[in-house]
Amino acid sequence: MKKVAIVMGSDSDLPIIEKGVAVLKDFGVPFEVLVYSAHRTPDEAGNFASTAKEKGFGVIIAAAGMAAHLAGALAARTTLPVIGIPCKSSALDGMDALLSTVQMPSGVPVATVAINGAQNACLLAIQMLALSDSELDKKLQAKKESDRVKALEKCKKINEQFKN
Amino acid sequence: MKKVAIVMGSDSDLPIIEKGVAVLKDFGVPFEVLVYSAHRTPDEAGNFASTAKEKGFGVIIAAAGMAAHLAGALAARTTLPVIGIPCKSSALDGMDALLSTVQMPSGVPVATVAINGAQNACLLAIQMLALSDSELDKKLQAKKESDRVKALEKCKKINEQFKN
Amino acid sequence: MKKVAIVMGSDSDLPIIEKGVAVLKDFGVPFEVLVYSAHRTPDEAGNFASTAKEKGFGVIIAAAGMAAHLAGALAARTTLPVIGIPCKSSALDGMDALLSTVQMPSGVPVATVAINGAQNACLLAIQMLALSDSELDKKLQAKKESDRVKALEKCKKINEQFKN
Amino acid sequence: MKKVAIVMGSDSDLPIIEKGVAVLKDFGVPFEVLVYSAHRTPDEAGNFASTAKEKGFGVIIAAAGMAAHLAGALAARTTLPVIGIPCKSSALDGMDALLSTVQMPSGVPVATVAINGAQNACLLAIQMLALSDSELDKKLQAKKESDRVKALEKCKKINEQFKN
Amino acid sequence: MKKVAIVMGSDSDLPIIEKGVAVLKDFGVPFEVLVYSAHRTPDEAGNFASTAKEKGFGVIIAAAGMAAHLAGALAARTTLPVIGIPCKSSALDGMDALLSTVQMPSGVPVATVAINGAQNACLLAIQMLALSDSELDKKLQAKKESDRVKALEKCKKINEQFKN
Amino acid sequence: MKKVAIVMGSDSDLPIIEKGVAVLKDFGVPFEVLVYSAHRTPDEAGNFASTAKEKGFGVIIAAAGMAAHLAGALAARTTLPVIGIPCKSSALDGMDALLSTVQMPSGVPVATVAINGAQNACLLAIQMLALSDSELDKKLQAKKESDRVKALEKCKKINEQFKN
Amino acid sequence: MKKVAIVMGSDSDLPIIEKGVAVLKDFGVPFEVLVYSAHRTPDEAGNFASTAKEKGFGVIIAAAGMAAHLAGALAARTTLPVIGIPCKSSALDGMDALLSTVQMPSGVPVATVAINGAQNACLLAIQMLALSDSELDKKLQAKKESDRVKALEKCKKINEQFKN
Amino acid sequence: MKKVAIVMGSDSDLPIIEKGVAVLKDFGVPFEVLVYSAHRTPDEAGNFASTAKEKGFGVIIAAAGMAAHLAGALAARTTLPVIGIPCKSSALDGMDALLSTVQMPSGVPVATVAINGAQNACLLAIQMLALSDSELDKKLQAKKESDRVKALEKCKKINEQFKN
Repeated sequence: MKKVAIVMGSDSDLPIIEKGVAVLKDFGVPFEVLVYSAHRTPDEAGNFASTAKEKGFGVIIAAAGMAAHLAGALAARTTLPVIGIPCKSSALDGMDALLSTVQMPSGVPVATVAINGAQNACLLAIQMLALSDSELDKKLQAKKESDRVKALEKCKKINEQFKN
Repeated sequence: MKKVAIVMGSDSDLPIIEKGVAVLKDFGVPFEVLVYSAHRTPDEAGNFASTAKEKGFGVIIAAAGMAAHLAGALAARTTLPVIGIPCKSSALDGMDALLSTVQMPSGVPVATVAINGAQNACLLAIQMLALSDSELDKKLQAKKESDRVKALEKCKKINEQFKN
Repeated sequence: MKKVAIVMGSDSDLPIIEKGVAVLKDFGVPFEVLVYSAHRTPDEAGNFASTAKEKGFGVIIAAAGMAAHLAGALAARTTLPVIGIPCKSSALDGMDALLSTVQMPSGVPVATVAINGAQNACLLAIQMLALSDSELDKKLQAKKESDRVKALEKCKKINEQFKN
Repeated sequence: MKKVAIVMGSDSDLPIIEKGVAVLKDFGVPFEVLVYSAHRTPDEAGNFASTAKEKGFGVIIAAAGMAAHLAGALAARTTLPVIGIPCKSSALDGMDALLSTVQMPSGVPVATVAINGAQNACLLAIQMLALSDSELDKKLQAKKESDRVKALEKCKKINEQFKN
Repeated sequence: MKKVAIVMGSDSDLPIIEKGVAVLKDFGVPFEVLVYSAHRTPDEAGNFASTAKEKGFGVIIAAAGMAAHLAGALAARTTLPVIGIPCKSSALDGMDALLSTVQMPSGVPVATVAINGAQNACLLAIQMLALSDSELDKKLQAKKESDRVKALEKCKKINEQFKN
Repeated sequence: MKKVAIVMGSDSDLPIIEKGVAVLKDFGVPFEVLVYSAHRTPDEAGNFASTAKEKGFGVIIAAAGMAAHLAGALAARTTLPVIGIPCKSSALDGMDALLSTVQMPSGVPVATVAINGAQNACLLAIQMLALSDSELDKKLQAKKESDRVKALEKCKKINEQFKN
Repeated sequence: MKKVAIVMGSDSDLPIIEKGVAVLKDFGVPFEVLVYSAHRTPDEAGNFASTAKEKGFGVIIAAAGMAAHLAGALAARTTLPVIGIPCKSSALDGMDALLSTVQMPSGVPVATVAINGAQNACLLAIQMLALSDSELDKKLQAKKESDRVKALEKCKKINEQFKN
Repeated sequence: MKKVAIVMGSDSDLPIIEKGVAVLKDFGVPFEVLVYSAHRTPDEAGNFASTAKEKGFGVIIAAAGMAAHLAGALAARTTLPVIGIPCKSSALDGMDALLSTVQMPSGVPVATVAINGAQNACLLAIQMLALSDSELDKKLQAKKESDRVKALEKCKKINEQFKN
């Protein structure tokens, strides 16, 4: 199976990333976590993106905050799909990272998820890989069903508790 | 090859969508354009998403404005990757559609592109399909190279024109 | 009397909802609390809305955060009035939920109240039910008068305390 | 049948209001249009709200722009449900009116619809009146069905036109 | 001397107001603090504004949060200058109160100060009263000079501490 | 009578200012219009503010766009009340000028009116002058009454036109 | 003299850039205009920045819209000062480009000017070069004085025209 | 070597500034820290800017919050490059200071860095000074390389830790 790369701009984003890592482990999807910055290690980030396909990666996830250029910088150098996670930092409540990640110009898309949305980024990567992997797709369906069942149990419990 | 579905919430979004349609035609990727609204035809929208996989679709693109629920409503009912295009409408400059599309809760990702970004939505869909289609990936690389060459020609021309 | 349904997208919104529940209890209005997600349990949410009228509900209140589609998803499937409570979550200070709830397209209104405004959502539901229930309307008038008197007492107390 | 009052803060909002008036006419719901300003005619606005119930009104719709206080000012003086339409004006793209209308304090709800959303405001008023008027509710259901059919026809037409 | 009225929409805004009260005490300006809500006690608020001039008030300060209508509601009923303090509440960081206070329509101005800016509201009131009270103006000049001297002392101290 | 100074940061703001000038002329209040920039003519702007009181000015109105520092720069050098008009420019819809004008630090208030709100700025100035000029206050009351009457006439006319 | 490089992400930004070019010509500062995109020609953009110093450039100006990464991408590869011009595009009024340009992480500054502020970007570049070029600094002082004089002439003219 | 001036509007911004001071010390760049307010000590701030060049300063850094006029007020009175640090304060998450600093009118640029970005402000100042000081430029290059190496070490460590 192709691997998923999770690249973060700074190791301070690790607590966010770990929630995504747990999703990939649950699905048994091979992955690597890397720290490349579009600004501090631009060449290494670029080289990583250029060679990611031949190294066996199928999807690249990029997490960054503030003027979050990482996802775009990677997407500029590969035809692999790149998923962007805008990370909330100390000011502006994540709006800066969201706009810097999602508002990409024509020709270089970044598949953007919610602010700090590492779990969804990893699920989206799995959905992409599952396009040609029916086993993986079955796991996705099972998780969807399991999420549904859990939600309905909560509904039942709360519905019994709160009534007039 | 799996088909791409482009679903729009309202036919008033057609001028935006046509730019994406041109991309899919350029790449020879089969597609269908549909008009389903999360609010006016919720059941049909839901049924479409639930059965899209078996109908041969590989990726769903959803374009909607204002409280843009369409992409999320489709993503709720399929494990196919869903790409969201927030459409700018008469107030708030597209910010409402952007937040309504991208800020999805854990478990149901939507791959969001820029406001009115139909071309990138289609390119992203092609990148996903190209994960298991090396011919398609070659076309993506060729387009990337062609975009690069065109940009450099513009650079050369303008550089000669503006110098002191 | 027709019942009020309070539907929340996630049980994490319960602390907000409980303030509204207290209002309904004060007025002796029958209600049920449910947990349905537009994204995790879309069919159950849809079924609930479609059958709410025949189950004796008169008004539906929906509380959700982030890309808050719940109120709209319910409104899409019923002609009962639907009230939306945008819930503040960890980023963007509730603006995402507000715009996702209020900016509904023509044909499918959602009566939106303030961010986290569960008390007002319940008061608004009671106002709607009181249109054909003069006893209930008297209670609304009594609460309005009581709020007024309490506010004036605060005014008197503070006015005596702070003078130059 | 109880009447619907449409109050606008300024007659410059008339073009927006006329779209809502058409909805009320379609449903055969009696209504009056008034121009009261929370700031230029505060007493008349207040008197109107205080006496609206006894004059046969069941729902009040208020449309205003900028620091849009009108809906709140009316809601302060009646237990009838008040629906607010935030109107877009020359700066800030309607955000000022939206926040001024929706962010009401506990005790005095305003049912807020989308910026310039006069049609939905009127539909919402009709939904409220239909709670005790099954004929009106049938009309609402018929409109919902008709909107659905029209949307599906558009879908069919566009689907045939755009395919690869 | 004419009195300053400080009206707050809710006694929860008292901690903000107390900083302004201290300013008025420092200047020996007579004042009263009141709690009137544009929504819970609209008539009393209106009556207060209508009669404020004859009761000896010269300036009215109004502090409110969320859909902050208080300043505008008072300004609608008096020709006295009204100063608005937008108060920050639990969501949206004060932006709702700011826009609800400052974006007043033509004919009814509100002199808006910064979010939570009670000290400046009181200074502004004093500046207005000082237009016809040269003793008061001298105190304003003395405070301005004193602020200047304190700031320069801080500058001197920090300049000595931080040098390379 | 004390004069009102209207200072604008750039003569491109003249169309906005002229609406305010008309108000001052209506009230027979003496005024001067000046063009001083906090950035292009900082010393002249400062000198003007420092000497405005002795030159017979009672209130200073400052209109500026973008990073609108003008009102604050004048307020820094006088104890006269300073009114700020944030002007909308080509980007950001006036939000930049609004925040730059209203968010003044403690000690130096600016009485901010709505974006492009020149008429209200002038009315506010007149309200300040009227604190010690009962003739002027009578004119303010007359204008308030006249605005009220005009609004009620519009109400009557539209009410007759739109009824079901 | 060291040259100034003006790099734009797309030739559609040329009308903005030309205003800056005029400033550089006025000051007789040598410059080149280039079109490099952080996303379409990332390697060429990177190479340009890496070699700009040895090619005789002293300052780099980068203009880009939407998720404006260009200035940051150049700053990542040079120790020359990089000035960023956020360009307004079809949605969000330039806020996306502003945040993407200015919110750079520690270690890689971008000197950001106003949205579409090409003239100021060029003046800032000249100020930097003038640090070691007293002739250039004299021209800057002369322009500042000339701007001042022009502004004062406008003030005089308008002051004579508008008086009561 | 020319000195760097760090001017802050209030000594409450000192914790932000100290991070920048550390950068200047690391590079051995002479500097002074000053506290001048555009509003409380406008003349001293102006005099400082007017005479900064002759006192040996080469770059001025200004840090301020809210309606942050300081950088602009200094830039108005010198041809030295002025760098602005928008400081986050208790409301609006720094957006007010950002817009007040960056949106300068043509003719008076301020080189704006990220909210609270004191380190980058100082690095930018050093980059400007390094234009005519090759030793300083070597230090900048060394820091860039050292930042790169540190980032790559983090990458290696995390990459080993997180793999599937």
